Amino acid sequence: MTNVQNHLQEIKNSLISSVFQAANPFLAVCRTLHRDGNLLNAGGHIYQLDQYREIVLVGFGKAVINMTLGTVDVLGECVKKGFLITKHASDEEIGRLPEGFIVRTGNHPVPGADSFESTRQLWDFLGEIDARDLVLCLISGGGSALCSLPAAPVTTTEMQEMTQLLLSCGAEIDEMNVLRKHIDEVKGGGIAARVAPAEMITLILSDVIGSPLDIIASGPTVPDSSTYEDMAGILAKYSLSNAVPATINELLAAGLDGRRFDTPKAGDPVFHHVNNLLVSSNLAACQAAVATAEDLGLNAMLLTTSLRGEARVAGRFLAGILQQIHATGQPIPRPACVALGGETTVILRGNGLGGRNQELALAAVRDLAAVPDILLFTLATDGEDGPTDAAGAWVDGDTLARGLSLGLSPETYLDNNDAYHYFEALGQLIMTGPSGTNVNDCAFLLAG
Amino acid sequence: MTNVQNHLQEIKNSLISSVFQAANPFLAVCRTLHRDGNLLNAGGHIYQLDQYREIVLVGFGKAVINMTLGTVDVLGECVKKGFLITKHASDEEIGRLPEGFIVRTGNHPVPGADSFESTRQLWDFLGEIDARDLVLCLISGGGSALCSLPAAPVTTTEMQEMTQLLLSCGAEIDEMNVLRKHIDEVKGGGIAARVAPAEMITLILSDVIGSPLDIIASGPTVPDSSTYEDMAGILAKYSLSNAVPATINELLAAGLDGRRFDTPKAGDPVFHHVNNLLVSSNLAACQAAVATAEDLGLNAMLLTTSLRGEARVAGRFLAGILQQIHATGQPIPRPACVALGGETTVILRGNGLGGRNQELALAAVRDLAAVPDILLFTLATDGEDGPTDAAGAWVDGDTLARGLSLGLSPETYLDNNDAYHYFEALGQLIMTGPSGTNVNDCAFLLAG
Repeated sequence: MTNVQNHLQEIKNSLISSVFQAANPFLAVCRTLHRDGNLLNAGGHIYQLDQYREIVLVGFGKAVINMTLGTVDVLGECVKKGFLITKHASDEEIGRLPEGFIVRTGNHPVPGADSFESTRQLWDFLGEIDARDLVLCLISGGGSALCSLPAAPVTTTEMQEMTQLLLSCGAEIDEMNVLRKHIDEVKGGGIAARVAPAEMITLILSDVIGSPLDIIASGPTVPDSSTYEDMAGILAKYSLSNAVPATINELLAAGLDGRRFDTPKAGDPVFHHVNNLLVSSNLAACQAAVATAEDLGLNAMLLTTSLRGEARVAGRFLAGILQQIHATGQPIPRPACVALGGETTVILRGNGLGGRNQELALAAVRDLAAVPDILLFTLATDGEDGPTDAAGAWVDGDTLARGLSLGLSPETYLDNNDAYHYFEALGQLIMTGPSGTNVNDCAFLLAG
Repeated sequence: MTNVQNHLQEIKNSLISSVFQAANPFLAVCRTLHRDGNLLNAGGHIYQLDQYREIVLVGFGKAVINMTLGTVDVLGECVKKGFLITKHASDEEIGRLPEGFIVRTGNHPVPGADSFESTRQLWDFLGEIDARDLVLCLISGGGSALCSLPAAPVTTTEMQEMTQLLLSCGAEIDEMNVLRKHIDEVKGGGIAARVAPAEMITLILSDVIGSPLDIIASGPTVPDSSTYEDMAGILAKYSLSNAVPATINELLAAGLDGRRFDTPKAGDPVFHHVNNLLVSSNLAACQAAVATAEDLGLNAMLLTTSLRGEARVAGRFLAGILQQIHATGQPIPRPACVALGGETTVILRGNGLGGRNQELALAAVRDLAAVPDILLFTLATDGEDGPTDAAGAWVDGDTLARGLSLGLSPETYLDNNDAYHYFEALGQLIMTGPSGTNVNDCAFLLAG
């Protein structure tokens, strides 16, 4: 490797480190909550800790344990009680929590019996909260499946049935969310309504592109703008009115008649005491990396946090940007760093091993061939890209030739969705181990 | 429309105008050649016009007539003779050329009998060129098909047969070019070799992404880096050595034995008197638009001239960039213009009417819904996007709602590849008429 290439590899490692720091659930909470004696500053809002009867912590999502450890690190002895729902929790992890904290597990990505039973217990726990309490609610990726409770008279089976019907009709994710918010107690502001008028701080670690607060975990503490009329419209659109379980139509009819309250809207008193704070996100991770790149003397730019679409198309797009920097110094002159965030998709055509980040990198290999002094790398911020133990991969101008000398054609591996084995053979996988967080993916373009 | 939206529409029209000016074949030639009395300045190289026996013009490609008019506009009475091959030429167009110019037609996109016969005549015309002549060679899109002459002993039928074999094997475009350059007299520096040692100025209007001079029209006046060994490797790779016509193996064997000259390489004396000049390109068009946007007070950026991949994926990517500018002012603060060039593809799934530019715009409609004060628009620089009479389309934050109020769902039209009728119903097609040029496509993101 040349000196420039070695230098780019060092920059790569610094950027990965800054992304993980920004997305780390423990650190993200510690950056958001600031305690000074009896006072807690949460996003500029000041809470006088000794005025509350109890400080209670609830949370759900895959990162909830580490978010809890951060919260407890700031608040210390103040927090007496907690109820958490996560996907897995080892005894070791549970052992780090304050005594008396309840930890339950749920199902992910599809809610099942564990989620429903754990959420039922959480619901009861929330029922004991007093108007004089302060509630900290911690939300992270997977929260929507891990925390779910059908609204009576709908049963868990009926809710699952409806979800299947909608999925098979090709309903959009926004439409799914309207239905979910209206038949699930906790979603669409349900948790805010359950604990009102107690004071509540919700800390949100976003795994959704653009970080819309009402979408992350279906917005349990956030106003919902959708209505029973919208729900009726969606069922009609997909001709599901007669197909869905009878209890869902009962619930809908009650909602349309005003016999049943709608989800709480913006301005509803249940939100008067709710402080929703985003603690980290793809945007925060990308911005942290851009700041690091600038510290390292690069011209740095955050291009988008909405990288979407098929990974192999995105890979060629990113290669094109890097070619342009090489050719004309546009959009920014060398030494340059372009950061992109988002989450692409892979359409499975083969039966190889890979993930969207590795496939994106592989799709860039041929276009970047022989472009000097550049590096492209990709990163799943959870450290696990697809069903692999790699977070992503890196590509430079020598990658194509190195691969060909080993008999590896990028197209063959792409066609088989086998990016992992291509980059494994070249020693170009990025192995970080699981990070315990998820703020989607990042990709970086470096030109030395 | 709001004032901001009206203003963005005005900016759109200015940018379209600057793209067409930059890509116009007549203007592009006039910007490149500068005559002062007896002196011609072509890209910094000075030619003393009265030292030549004759000044001869040859050219081929879809824009050759207008490039010729530009050349004649600069050189005037100096040019006595010309031989042009184009796709169509009306009597009116031919009437504008100097008397005695020969105009022939060829076939496009696949070379056929007309191309071969016209090129045979061109080859004879070139044979009469004297070492004391100055040759101006004009090259534009379509040149590779319009100008083609199989090298003996390969016949036209055998060349077509080989092309079909390669296409059906899934050979890459670079591989096709290696074969073409070795079995076609004019390609891979063939025209430079034919007229050497006469002085030659080649003016190239690029329709290839990145404008590699050896690829545009297969580089008839540009050194070729590929060899007979490369050709043999490609035939072996696709197991075509026994399948191709016998004459092609004869030609190859002669080349490998050194009984036949290879295409001329960089440094070959045939190029000592050749001055290859790019007169316009996608990059030039994008840069012109960026300069116009800056003049209009916008923060402007050229992001890439390598926009590639499926149009519907690119559309969502571009929408994501515009969302980011709206949300955080990154990569550039408002008022902002991001320019992109390249050429996307459409995979046909339905039987509607559209083109890659219109489909890209349609794919952005839902993501841009309700984003205020923005405009995305796309443009085929030949003015004819796909098989339609529109150059492209525009999208703003109201497009989704306007469409839905007419019962138009973007997804339905996307699935049917029917972007034309979606935008036609909304009055959002961009109709420029045929431009007589082609420097691929441009897309612009505006945020007021």
